Amino acid sequence: MPDTEDGGRAGNGSLSATPRTRHGRLREQGRLDRADLLAVLRAGFVAHLGLQTAHGVMVIPTVYGFDDQHAYVHGSVASQSLAAGTAEVCLTVTIVDGLVLARSVFEHAVNYRSAMIYARPRIVAEPGEKLAGLRLISEHLAPGQWDYVRQPSRKELAATRLLALSLAEASVKVRTGPPDDADSPDAALGLWAGELPLDTRWQHPVPDPALPAGLPPPAHITCRAGTEARSR
Amino acid sequence: MPDTEDGGRAGNGSLSATPRTRHGRLREQGRLDRADLLAVLRAGFVAHLGLQTAHGVMVIPTVYGFDDQHAYVHGSVASQSLAAGTAEVCLTVTIVDGLVLARSVFEHAVNYRSAMIYARPRIVAEPGEKLAGLRLISEHLAPGQWDYVRQPSRKELAATRLLALSLAEASVKVRTGPPDDADSPDAALGLWAGELPLDTRWQHPVPDPALPAGLPPPAHITCRAGTEARSR
Repeated sequence: MPDTEDGGRAGNGSLSATPRTRHGRLREQGRLDRADLLAVLRAGFVAHLGLQTAHGVMVIPTVYGFDDQHAYVHGSVASQSLAAGTAEVCLTVTIVDGLVLARSVFEHAVNYRSAMIYARPRIVAEPGEKLAGLRLISEHLAPGQWDYVRQPSRKELAATRLLALSLAEASVKVRTGPPDDADSPDAALGLWAGELPLDTRWQHPVPDPALPAGLPPPAHITCRAGTEARSR
Repeated sequence: MPDTEDGGRAGNGSLSATPRTRHGRLREQGRLDRADLLAVLRAGFVAHLGLQTAHGVMVIPTVYGFDDQHAYVHGSVASQSLAAGTAEVCLTVTIVDGLVLARSVFEHAVNYRSAMIYARPRIVAEPGEKLAGLRLISEHLAPGQWDYVRQPSRKELAATRLLALSLAEASVKVRTGPPDDADSPDAALGLWAGELPLDTRWQHPVPDPALPAGLPPPAHITCRAGTEARSR
């Protein structure tokens, strides 16, 4: 098993090819460029973090942030699941783009973009780095909010655990386009085939009922309404 | 660790409370009713399957189907990751409903519905049960397609591995509503706070370019356009 933290593979444009990231099957769906990884992370909203706990494997939905070198996830210091800071985890981000409707059940598929990051998380303790990592998460979710709302207090920072995952070992898969059976004998069945795209959009903001009347949402929030969401 | 397959807890209305499904934190988000579990499974589209492999934990996006007692996932018999049919896995389905914009970074949250199923998968070998399980997956994704397209051949069935996961041990979490800081000192900041809902909808079907001109999509596909998608 390669050393996934500071493994020296993070600087170049290619992703790693370790036994678990080398695409054994569906090779045509594998992308090996770091830009593809960052594009998936940019497009996603919620990730699924898989980790080995005393009670077995758990897969936890979580928000995340990232820069060129790391993905960041956070949680409460009281959370049992994030306590195992040193064990290897897998962080998967998936964007579903639509359903692929083929001429046979067997050829049905999903159009998607997905990134799997394998890393030994590092608990970020240094306050400056911790604040920067939390800011990356916040700005990925809600651009502009970090500077608009009250930033974390010393007590809140202490109650938050931030994990940094190196992007050195990762695998990206993308499927696009129509079904694969246009040239198969099934084409003679004369059935309709194609794609059913999915579209996810932010809606108009809904004010907290506790707000004083007439307080408008700020522009960095209202401007998102109707735009494509980074989540599916 | 409880026996998760045929554990005898599947028949009643309550979900299990094992060490990993007992909600340690955020207890108010935990739902214990089986109906809540089925509602999340019904609303979801893609699940994330976490499993322990020879190379560590992997989290794989996958489609799924379900009935009252089991969730079903499938893959190629050539897939390494589904070969470990007897080890415990965690299958997580998450629907993101929106972003919760609070008055402080710390109180930001996500409105979501999520189910985590813990089970020791059983490889379904009996052809009738296998066909029924695959049909559940197909109909969950694309209602009506099973009867419209060519159904699996004997050879295709043999190339497909179907895993059944008991629903006996599961955990459901749901968060809805505005941020939690309306009664906090931060309310005095006078900031806007509320929710930014997400909406995911099926779009109009896109025909395979290889189709003969003038072949319309069937009604069971066109009727989905504009409807809320079971995926976010």
